Amino acid sequence: MSDQTIERLRGRLGDRGLLTEPAAMAPFLTDWRGREEGRALCVALPASTEEVAAVVAIAAAAGLPLFPQGGNTGLCYGAVPRGGAGPGIVVALQRMNRIREIDRAANVMTVDAGVVLDAAHAAAAEVGRQVPLYLGSQGSAQIGGLISTNAGGTGVIRYGPMRELVCGLEVVLADGRVLCDLEALKKNNTGYDLKQLFIGAEGTLGIVTGAALRLHPAMAADAHAWVALATPADALSLLSRLQDRFDTAILACELLSRSEVDLVLAEVERTRCPFAETPPWTLMIELGSADPEAPLGERLQDLLATALEDGLALDAMVAASRSQAEDIWRVRHSVSEANRAGFGLTHDVAVRVSKVPAFIAAADRLLAERFPDAVPVVVAHLGDGNVHYIAMFQHAYWRGLNDPKATVAEVQTRLHDLAAGFGGSISAEHGIGRKLTGELARLGDPLRYELMAGLKRLLDPDDRLNPGVLLARPS
Amino acid sequence: MSDQTIERLRGRLGDRGLLTEPAAMAPFLTDWRGREEGRALCVALPASTEEVAAVVAIAAAAGLPLFPQGGNTGLCYGAVPRGGAGPGIVVALQRMNRIREIDRAANVMTVDAGVVLDAAHAAAAEVGRQVPLYLGSQGSAQIGGLISTNAGGTGVIRYGPMRELVCGLEVVLADGRVLCDLEALKKNNTGYDLKQLFIGAEGTLGIVTGAALRLHPAMAADAHAWVALATPADALSLLSRLQDRFDTAILACELLSRSEVDLVLAEVERTRCPFAETPPWTLMIELGSADPEAPLGERLQDLLATALEDGLALDAMVAASRSQAEDIWRVRHSVSEANRAGFGLTHDVAVRVSKVPAFIAAADRLLAERFPDAVPVVVAHLGDGNVHYIAMFQHAYWRGLNDPKATVAEVQTRLHDLAAGFGGSISAEHGIGRKLTGELARLGDPLRYELMAGLKRLLDPDDRLNPGVLLARPS
Repeated sequence: MSDQTIERLRGRLGDRGLLTEPAAMAPFLTDWRGREEGRALCVALPASTEEVAAVVAIAAAAGLPLFPQGGNTGLCYGAVPRGGAGPGIVVALQRMNRIREIDRAANVMTVDAGVVLDAAHAAAAEVGRQVPLYLGSQGSAQIGGLISTNAGGTGVIRYGPMRELVCGLEVVLADGRVLCDLEALKKNNTGYDLKQLFIGAEGTLGIVTGAALRLHPAMAADAHAWVALATPADALSLLSRLQDRFDTAILACELLSRSEVDLVLAEVERTRCPFAETPPWTLMIELGSADPEAPLGERLQDLLATALEDGLALDAMVAASRSQAEDIWRVRHSVSEANRAGFGLTHDVAVRVSKVPAFIAAADRLLAERFPDAVPVVVAHLGDGNVHYIAMFQHAYWRGLNDPKATVAEVQTRLHDLAAGFGGSISAEHGIGRKLTGELARLGDPLRYELMAGLKRLLDPDDRLNPGVLLARPS
Repeated sequence: MSDQTIERLRGRLGDRGLLTEPAAMAPFLTDWRGREEGRALCVALPASTEEVAAVVAIAAAAGLPLFPQGGNTGLCYGAVPRGGAGPGIVVALQRMNRIREIDRAANVMTVDAGVVLDAAHAAAAEVGRQVPLYLGSQGSAQIGGLISTNAGGTGVIRYGPMRELVCGLEVVLADGRVLCDLEALKKNNTGYDLKQLFIGAEGTLGIVTGAALRLHPAMAADAHAWVALATPADALSLLSRLQDRFDTAILACELLSRSEVDLVLAEVERTRCPFAETPPWTLMIELGSADPEAPLGERLQDLLATALEDGLALDAMVAASRSQAEDIWRVRHSVSEANRAGFGLTHDVAVRVSKVPAFIAAADRLLAERFPDAVPVVVAHLGDGNVHYIAMFQHAYWRGLNDPKATVAEVQTRLHDLAAGFGGSISAEHGIGRKLTGELARLGDPLRYELMAGLKRLLDPDDRLNPGVLLARPS
């Protein structure tokens, strides 16, 4: 039966559209960090929505599971083909990489799901607009995957996550029918907003094949600052003052612990701190405006001068040049590189913005009491309540552990318990994938979990769309 | 059995919480314009989420339909208790009118569903923030109803509709269980975003009892202009220029036809046009900023001067005083009053923003050909693609019609067909209610309609939540 299915797929997709050789399939069967591996009968590379629909229909007839894949840059193994009754079909969207239309007057860009984010950025820039989603993997992540994982990044404080940038979707359903709503109406009150279901669904309810994305004006003025603070609570107070004055001009607001900044300064070349000593807490601020004449630097200087007078800030530096601005953000962007100096257990937690200081304090206490060999390292998107809380161990200590996996699990369990106790989320922006299904089943609201399983049954009754992802027990 | 149910309800809600006398129930059985009437066994006035849950559970045990009601200010009869197997229970939320919490650092206000919008505005203003939803009924409309109808208004261009202001919901499901997520996390990628289902669902999937609303900074500077234009296409070009420069500073952008402005000037006292003649098309613009020193008026003057030089605008007036600004907006806000001078058939249509000029032209042609006795009158939220297209007849002509209802239906059918042909919506902001179920069944995408019916079955298998609304045939 598999052979028949493969012949049917080849007949529909052509030789270019189907991979069956192990060597050719290999990159599609493992995540980009090579941590988890799956298997598949074949990799389908459809070139159009019609071809995706045909693949889904053929798989439905054969009872095979489908594993949608975008840029394969996820962190939770959501794109690794594993789970389901047996090996199935990877559906990789990379050949669907067309910018279908740019409607500048409506501020809408319509794209294939396989368009890489960088390409969408470039197309928008050509018309003086932006698709304001900014993250580390933008050179490889595809729009379909970014929608299916409701991607975040540094621009969320201003523009929201991917959910707020999607104004229309084209989705192939489990039975091969195509749900299409790419008109990108800004108002449409004619019932349930179905597209919301597929955003962040990690490919479990349908395969996203196209999207209408909201364009925003390009920025023409900017300002950048590094502020030294005594505590996360002071950072939060400063953020409130910034919002009072600057509102949507705040493009980024990143909080770093002294431990994180010191790691970067020690490990990464050409990084510097503008102050004599690394401050206890660092807040990095970016402002932007579409108006080229907006006096953002001057205004930011005023606001920070007042914060210094009031004793809210310990010190502050507003970038006076492009190169000073780059110096600030080089420190922020060197975090991943610097953190390799130790063995870091990273957690992608979110709490209500006002609870960030209390959460960090409680997590620090937890580490000090239960895991005294770990140094707490914090990088937080403060305006989103998103704390990347890292328990950093020395490599030598880690190598000496008898059961390192048990320690990974124990730290994660304790920190997730803590986040849940604060009413927070165990996955702010990375998703659940195949990595956190157990944690979601353990800590998720049972009623919400039950309703999610009901939605899954409604839209994918045979559990053939990315089985094993999100819900540990879909039925 | 009804008597038993009423006794159970009275036992749970007390005398204050239950109305059964016809005179007391009457205001809850008809819409505010007195156009449609329903019936009910009783009106429940629960004072807490627990009481709503108890009412729903009692109704479930008795197999009675439930009719949730907020401020009862809808335009599509969504709150009129009609439909379902027999008379049921109106659940009016007015006693749940508590502001539960304001968390300024997190920019979140948590409220009971029965809080009136004006009260939410006032509470936000006290902490220098706003709940930026602005519409005519804000003195009576309640948060729960505004969420259930995904309300719009004039601020949508800047802040989006109600959907974008809701960051958490508390909902009583059809079986009486309470789904609660009021933590208002800005990031939470742990599966399907269930709250989206209930926003705009018009009470058909659950009863909203509480909400967490996003607060935005209050505005501290503003600017207002009336621009005279030759065509809607020119208005659209001007809007693009405004967006390039002012981005989120654009708070309102309203397009009016000459026919509409002339009606206002003729019918409403103390209204004036700043130009010698009423221009073919009027664009009213409001800019705002949280920064009190933002030079918006000056910048707007510059941009409009260029538009005049280029021939894009015919004339323009930037308000030099508060009273000039009020003069502009008095004309806009007098539209409903002025339109009573004729018999107007209003349509709440949306098309993609870039298609507004073509839609208006096509609708004008349709009227000229098919209904030459009607004058086309247009008020549009241009930035949202939302056109309130009005076929205005003279009262004398209308009184002479043999079958006025047939004319109402024919005009509506033709204009909805036209909107659908443009890929547009037959209800941009007013909803479907009990008024447009037939039109939705006729013109909605059949696949979308099928999926909506599936969601309804999943969450309300016995069709007891606001039956007769939205879906003409839910199963």
